[in-house]
Amino acid sequence: MGKFITIGERIHCISPVIREAMNTQNPEPILLRAKEQLDAGAVYLDVNIGPAESTGVELMKWAVRLLQENFDNVPLCLDTANKKAIEAGISVYNRSKGKPIVNSADAGDRIEYIDLAGANDAMCIALCSKAGVPADNDERMMYCQELLERGMEHGMEPEDLWFDPLFLVIKGMQDKQMDVLDAIRMISEMGLNSTGGLSNVSNGMPKEVRPIMDAAMMAMAMANGLTSAIINPCDKRLMETIKSCDVIKNNSLYADSYLQI
Amino acid sequence: MGKFITIGERIHCISPVIREAMNTQNPEPILLRAKEQLDAGAVYLDVNIGPAESTGVELMKWAVRLLQENFDNVPLCLDTANKKAIEAGISVYNRSKGKPIVNSADAGDRIEYIDLAGANDAMCIALCSKAGVPADNDERMMYCQELLERGMEHGMEPEDLWFDPLFLVIKGMQDKQMDVLDAIRMISEMGLNSTGGLSNVSNGMPKEVRPIMDAAMMAMAMANGLTSAIINPCDKRLMETIKSCDVIKNNSLYADSYLQI
Repeated sequence: MGKFITIGERIHCISPVIREAMNTQNPEPILLRAKEQLDAGAVYLDVNIGPAESTGVELMKWAVRLLQENFDNVPLCLDTANKKAIEAGISVYNRSKGKPIVNSADAGDRIEYIDLAGANDAMCIALCSKAGVPADNDERMMYCQELLERGMEHGMEPEDLWFDPLFLVIKGMQDKQMDVLDAIRMISEMGLNSTGGLSNVSNGMPKEVRPIMDAAMMAMAMANGLTSAIINPCDKRLMETIKSCDVIKNNSLYADSYLQI
Repeated sequence: MGKFITIGERIHCISPVIREAMNTQNPEPILLRAKEQLDAGAVYLDVNIGPAESTGVELMKWAVRLLQENFDNVPLCLDTANKKAIEAGISVYNRSKGKPIVNSADAGDRIEYIDLAGANDAMCIALCSKAGVPADNDERMMYCQELLERGMEHGMEPEDLWFDPLFLVIKGMQDKQMDVLDAIRMISEMGLNSTGGLSNVSNGMPKEVRPIMDAAMMAMAMANGLTSAIINPCDKRLMETIKSCDVIKNNSLYADSYLQI
């Protein structure tokens, strides 16, 4: 087993500072967010430019070049509803530190993101959902199978599809959390990789509670075989938990200094 | 599923203060340790008097009465290699808050602790080991089966046997940690209860690392179905993790104040 792969979520147009920087192609705020996340241990960085219908192609190319030139070809996760922007980003992407990740396909309107990833030798996050939250794990696993077949038809290797079981908010869907963990186990037992937006579980909880709940869920998900997640790497408790679970899983060798690495 | 059951480990003759208090039958240090643990959320308290070959009978009776009279019949886990002391403790034990737990039987020299628990309508911690650390999960599950059968022959209900997979120290047995987690899952899938001395995993690690590693292991073990553990309830990070996992498992209802309860 390889080490758990963290994808830093903080270059996201939902942040006013980042949106403004993207609108004006101002490098500084984006470089700062990238540095903070990489210093905290992020492996991939997600670059979410939003729908970006008219400006997406130029914006994604600019962001990919900016980040890779400044951070030694850091591997990126290209995140937008604008397909052409993803293709444009890949066209200028340097693969020396890892393939780009397309974020994201699903089994509904966004199934063609799989084709796009296949055509461009990229990896792809594949949501086990079609329209909204899957009702149960039969549905999750049906979509997983569908997306896997689609990927293989388009020449992808199974390990380049990272299946997202869809983490659900506890406040409102408390009784569904074990389903999500079971889905991760099923995906893992199929020998497949998984990922997801973990912090959704603690959405709406008090600010001081969220890192505690997120860390607990992370360890439970890693026990069930989760191989990656889209997270805030600046959450110290979460990163400590990931490193500890990697030791327990024998993914990384224990040393007394393992939290500092 | 019921809530996770914590057994406070801190009334233990290995502590010089507690040993001295036991030797002189001085209540104060023991009552203080009990209060600290109960205030921190412990459900059961372990009372470890050591081998106590000559004094065990009187000592255990004294300790059981002392704790139950001062803390509203707090349920106890009677922990000694002196069988007569366990019987004596049970003879004065008040069951209004739960049966006593005998700590512990194994599949070797201490298998008769099961008979003792059966004869006294007590619960029993049953170590899935015989002489030392089990080589693999085939061995663990063979002992589990043996202990379960022995208990049923002696009139016990399966849920009164709490199977301990034997948590192993990471420094030295890093590659065996997933076996322990798998064993917990197998025990859980048999519909059985489980427990264990969790903090063994972080034995020998730097003091500041131990709560981080323990909390990660706890969440992973709870994901796999662990129903109880012998722990230090004054470890805040660990207790926060247990409460969070109980929410994720839907064992307790989420409220914004769930960490304060």
